[in-house]
Amino acid sequence: VNVSELGEFALIERLAKVIDAPAPEGLIVGIGDDAAVWRTGDSLAMATTDTLVEGVHFLPGLTPWRDLGWKALAVNVSDIAAMGGAPLFALVTLAAPRQTDIAHCDELYAGLGECAREYGVTIAGGDIVRASEFSITVALIGRAEMCDGKPLLLRRDCARAGDEIAVTGCLGDSAAGLLRLKDGTPTTDSLVQAHLRPHPPLQAAQEAARLGVVCGIDISDGLTQDLGHVCQRSNLGADVRADALPISEALRSSFPEKALSLACTGGEDYQMLFTGPSDIIERLRSAAISPVTVIGKMTSAGERRAGVFDAAGEEIRFESWGWDHLRT
Amino acid sequence: VNVSELGEFALIERLAKVIDAPAPEGLIVGIGDDAAVWRTGDSLAMATTDTLVEGVHFLPGLTPWRDLGWKALAVNVSDIAAMGGAPLFALVTLAAPRQTDIAHCDELYAGLGECAREYGVTIAGGDIVRASEFSITVALIGRAEMCDGKPLLLRRDCARAGDEIAVTGCLGDSAAGLLRLKDGTPTTDSLVQAHLRPHPPLQAAQEAARLGVVCGIDISDGLTQDLGHVCQRSNLGADVRADALPISEALRSSFPEKALSLACTGGEDYQMLFTGPSDIIERLRSAAISPVTVIGKMTSAGERRAGVFDAAGEEIRFESWGWDHLRT
Repeated sequence: VNVSELGEFALIERLAKVIDAPAPEGLIVGIGDDAAVWRTGDSLAMATTDTLVEGVHFLPGLTPWRDLGWKALAVNVSDIAAMGGAPLFALVTLAAPRQTDIAHCDELYAGLGECAREYGVTIAGGDIVRASEFSITVALIGRAEMCDGKPLLLRRDCARAGDEIAVTGCLGDSAAGLLRLKDGTPTTDSLVQAHLRPHPPLQAAQEAARLGVVCGIDISDGLTQDLGHVCQRSNLGADVRADALPISEALRSSFPEKALSLACTGGEDYQMLFTGPSDIIERLRSAAISPVTVIGKMTSAGERRAGVFDAAGEEIRFESWGWDHLRT
Repeated sequence: VNVSELGEFALIERLAKVIDAPAPEGLIVGIGDDAAVWRTGDSLAMATTDTLVEGVHFLPGLTPWRDLGWKALAVNVSDIAAMGGAPLFALVTLAAPRQTDIAHCDELYAGLGECAREYGVTIAGGDIVRASEFSITVALIGRAEMCDGKPLLLRRDCARAGDEIAVTGCLGDSAAGLLRLKDGTPTTDSLVQAHLRPHPPLQAAQEAARLGVVCGIDISDGLTQDLGHVCQRSNLGADVRADALPISEALRSSFPEKALSLACTGGEDYQMLFTGPSDIIERLRSAAISPVTVIGKMTSAGERRAGVFDAAGEEIRFESWGWDHLRT
């Protein structure tokens, strides 16, 4: 059996079993969420890592190096946000072929620096290695607050039946932007920008945690797949109403027929998904740090997966289910 | 200009300038040492990352997967040890081609688990991505102790003129083991084992910090190069006595003519180098947690580099200067 047959998520489960070590006392969240979390003195530390590989996560020759730098850090900020935390320090690993132009590295790091300033992150170290293809790995360390001795965290396994499902921003713009980028659309296009320069709603996520939201995930692999992770980890189903999904005018007008499918399975939005009681979700909407849209409900019935339904209550099936790094 | 012309260390310096952000209040050690260190409440947190790339850091088909897993974590433990810290939590990123055999991943993770148990590390998360060549990246987070409000850290920039230079264990075995591995020597050979399964002297490094040693580095790229980093960061020179170097019987008998050069420039020993006043070094030697050998002295004169001298006081020049990831 090879890794592409098994798929990314089954491989993670399998490897967690191979390692098979008891969790130490201070560990609060281990393998299987957006970031690991452990107690450190009176507060919580968290850490996450994400890699962008040339030809897999970005298009050589099409993705500007500066945008690549921004995105390499932003996708990690998104994981820290998805736990309700604040990012602090980043380690950056560059794997580069010998012939890599130093001007490209300069641009890449300039973009990293821009994202670091935007989110209050300090780049504190890293590694540089030779490789045959270019990739950039960021490990990001953050912290979360405690309140009355309880960790203010967002987790995948804390949804409850009846919870409303809410998302920030618009969905599908990034996937549409990728299609346009491949078609030669200039990088100034708003959809292309959504793809190249994701802005994870860090403050909204932290506000959600403070308001009492306990379940959240970032939408990185596509809505149905990421919401599916919440379903599996919380042992629930999820009903999403297609007509409630926040889809931008730009996406609707550019891809009228594909808009819904891109919003549900497109991936790389780096928006946040929360679930919670309606009063808490309403308070989060009122706080208005980012636009928040209620798109459906968590359910106790049926399979542990997310279904998307039309106005008549019929389930809409999509060709793809979302992004799997090893299968796609 | 491409990155191989610039070289790894000049590239790190250049990129640190491109990012050009002011260090935040809590940061104690940033880019340029073995690990980043920052204050977190009453203690210190530290983080480091290292990548092993197929064909660059390990030999496909020759390096057993289980040993690769061990080493991927051990080289990071070495960096935390080199700061005087204790490793706690690791994030593991696997970049794997689609056709990677899942049995190899199992072995890799078994080796990771062995090293994690040996050093008290919890593997708390990571990432899995598709790539055209196999690589493994570990980010390791640790902590260091404070004593009377002062951080107990080992740094590269704290050597003083007149300090004795001491190293743990033996030097050159790993590089010799790599040569033997390439020649088809079985992996049970002691030199090959030194290459495949480095055991960073974590306890000795922590004891050194407790005894008052303030300057240290791990020997990963070769003695002269790593000691050279101490020279540059501390603005000093270093005189090493060739006849004082700890060289194993196995190395001497297997490579009588190359032994000295392998010990000075071989790389991947993952032993520790300390500098400090002779009384503190003597106390560390007496503590006898690991064998510690005095090999020379830090000097204020001359260039900021390490020189190796024979019994007659003549400097010995080596063909290679040590390992540069981008140039070699």
